Amino acid sequence: MRSAILSLAIASLLPAVCYAAPKNIIYMIGDGMGPAYVAGYRYYQHDPANATVASTVFDDLLTGMASTYPDDDTLVTDSAAGATALATGVKSYNGAISVNRQHIPIGTMMQLAKRLGKANGIVASSQVNHATPASFLAHNSSRRNLDNIADMYLDYRIDGKPVADLIIGGGTRYFVREDRNLVNGFTDLGYQYTDDYKQLNSLTRLPAMALLADIALPAALNSDNGGMLAPLTDKALQLLSSADKGFVLMVEGSQIDWCGHDNDIACAMAEMHDFAKAISVAKAYVDANPDTLLVITADHETGGLSLGANGVYQWRTDVIKQVKATGREIARQLQQLKEPQEISQRYTELTGISLDKVQLQLLVTALQDADDKAARNQILQFISDASLTGWTSGGHTAADVPVMAYGKNAAEFNGFMDNTAIAKKLIQYIQQSK
Amino acid sequence: MRSAILSLAIASLLPAVCYAAPKNIIYMIGDGMGPAYVAGYRYYQHDPANATVASTVFDDLLTGMASTYPDDDTLVTDSAAGATALATGVKSYNGAISVNRQHIPIGTMMQLAKRLGKANGIVASSQVNHATPASFLAHNSSRRNLDNIADMYLDYRIDGKPVADLIIGGGTRYFVREDRNLVNGFTDLGYQYTDDYKQLNSLTRLPAMALLADIALPAALNSDNGGMLAPLTDKALQLLSSADKGFVLMVEGSQIDWCGHDNDIACAMAEMHDFAKAISVAKAYVDANPDTLLVITADHETGGLSLGANGVYQWRTDVIKQVKATGREIARQLQQLKEPQEISQRYTELTGISLDKVQLQLLVTALQDADDKAARNQILQFISDASLTGWTSGGHTAADVPVMAYGKNAAEFNGFMDNTAIAKKLIQYIQQSK
Repeated sequence: MRSAILSLAIASLLPAVCYAAPKNIIYMIGDGMGPAYVAGYRYYQHDPANATVASTVFDDLLTGMASTYPDDDTLVTDSAAGATALATGVKSYNGAISVNRQHIPIGTMMQLAKRLGKANGIVASSQVNHATPASFLAHNSSRRNLDNIADMYLDYRIDGKPVADLIIGGGTRYFVREDRNLVNGFTDLGYQYTDDYKQLNSLTRLPAMALLADIALPAALNSDNGGMLAPLTDKALQLLSSADKGFVLMVEGSQIDWCGHDNDIACAMAEMHDFAKAISVAKAYVDANPDTLLVITADHETGGLSLGANGVYQWRTDVIKQVKATGREIARQLQQLKEPQEISQRYTELTGISLDKVQLQLLVTALQDADDKAARNQILQFISDASLTGWTSGGHTAADVPVMAYGKNAAEFNGFMDNTAIAKKLIQYIQQSK
Repeated sequence: MRSAILSLAIASLLPAVCYAAPKNIIYMIGDGMGPAYVAGYRYYQHDPANATVASTVFDDLLTGMASTYPDDDTLVTDSAAGATALATGVKSYNGAISVNRQHIPIGTMMQLAKRLGKANGIVASSQVNHATPASFLAHNSSRRNLDNIADMYLDYRIDGKPVADLIIGGGTRYFVREDRNLVNGFTDLGYQYTDDYKQLNSLTRLPAMALLADIALPAALNSDNGGMLAPLTDKALQLLSSADKGFVLMVEGSQIDWCGHDNDIACAMAEMHDFAKAISVAKAYVDANPDTLLVITADHETGGLSLGANGVYQWRTDVIKQVKATGREIARQLQQLKEPQEISQRYTELTGISLDKVQLQLLVTALQDADDKAARNQILQFISDASLTGWTSGGHTAADVPVMAYGKNAAEFNGFMDNTAIAKKLIQYIQQSK
């Protein structure tokens, strides 16, 4: 008896079931979410009335950092190669959707999950066939082949069924085309479907699909609701949680990257907030379902973002918090105005920044440029300058990205790792928990 | 008997002595070493002949990330406030050397170690009274008061003795002054002393002091030996290891920050290599002396460094590896030349970069500028452009910094923390292990 009690005591002291795999995996990818985005979001959330800066959900779950370099000598990955690494555990070239240099498909964790009878799904705030979700569900030599990738979502079958049990995001234009209506194909196979966010509750079981925008979902900063990722994640977890053998869900905060490409800091912080709320939903799910592992990372850094710039020892979140729309939306609104005075007034309404004469002239000139980028860049340059936000690129950089983990086996993600190691561990868990 | 064996078994399963404090602490600070420096160094060390990028000692020891904001609303710290937080566990204003806003001294971990009878020491590649080491040993309302700080190294006494048992770095000009010879003061108190690197072996026991340069030690990139930090760290550990009650050693890779301020990537990578070699020495010490904790972090990020820039998806370490001297040294050499052709040839010899006509004209013009910065900036701009290295500032940024830990209680540094939390833990260990 005493021996039995002691054995129990020993068991309770063992590291928490290191080698037992979690039944469910929630894998969240902040596209472009380099380390400065995570630190920046903390300060953006900070109330200056408090002496201490509160940690965010990103901070609370941080376990390590990951390298992201692709399978070439550039060191800087794109989202396709990054997502291929994160979905398959194998590096490939920039542009690759889960194929190798010889364009041979590399099996993905979602395909494996399906094969093993687990449920799976993806949620993205971009079109659902964009590079990151595509690398989990399809194979293509180029991320640019968006129609082909959408086709594959329906045509690539495992045991006679499409790979994904659940697909939520934007992209009706790729799925309801003149040459082919993929949505009909899915509903013929028994998928519930909606293209209306208000009808999301009409999805009551798997398989299901929701395409809620022509291309991407609205930018969080331009949305009254501040983004949909949290309720969509909640919905996905409701539907997937009924699966007997567990599930694998991938949720992408897709547009953090797009804000980074535009060098639009207010846009980026709003997308980070949308993503953070979705993470909180996932974390609560893990709390209620301890047999679940939540892993969060990014595919790469975008923009060479820095908090502080131009030699000034300050980063002004007060400026950023006053910005009410993305650079693209501000440009769209200002392009409808003619008088410099109107332009100046509306710019100030939308950004909180007052322009002097020279700045206004720069803006008016940029608005007359045939290239839409000119106005956007000028609009955003004033915001970056006023907030002391630094950018070095309109593209990606080779920065390491944060890794967060929570729940079962979270400690396995402590320290530094390559992005492929994250996928390899998850694939191992999927295999072990079948 | 069986119960005793089982108890033993239980003890062996307990997390490795979580609450027993390490006898020795080695605390290494890479000044300015933001996350991109650590990732960049990995790629700089990478041999492109290998398909996989090898991890560095930084990667191998990474445990988490730390925030660095100072005690004001700027979010961007300087080295003084950063080091004050890392030395005392208390945030202060930029410029503060372990004093609070009211200029009241805040006790440092080195003072505590001394008070408790532990040995202590600092090694820095800057002058030893620069902001980071100063915040461990002294108190001052401003980092700029370099003479006053040096005075305090001798004058501030604990049990009748100066705070530090061992001081190694540069800075003879602050310690042997016309108005006061502090070195004599130290030797009068029994300190062994040398100002000659070749005579380092003349230091055979504590207390001891080595001031090996007028101000800072030579930049690693300009040194035949690639920097002295590893042998100096080795020497410090030899001397400190004899201490009965253990020791606290702070080693600063001081000049990573200075390269960052100059936006000099080759300089930064050479300093990172110097610092990495010193970390390997410390790691080997921990392997041989398991009752030791090694913690590595940075006080802040400098320069807004990004790996990749200007929209190009590449970072070219091949360019960086060809640079043979710092921007300052290249400028010094080029300023001695007159003919554009000579200047062009020497620039190419020193950097591997061939200048076209327009570039050469820019360089010649910059070399004629009365401000030394003009030539240096132009010299370095070509290197940044060719290597696709991005910078957003000549100052610091609010990026989180990496935290590495190894040895006893290393796991206590997993995840995200504030910089003050690092110091608080170390102070707690010093108190517990007295």
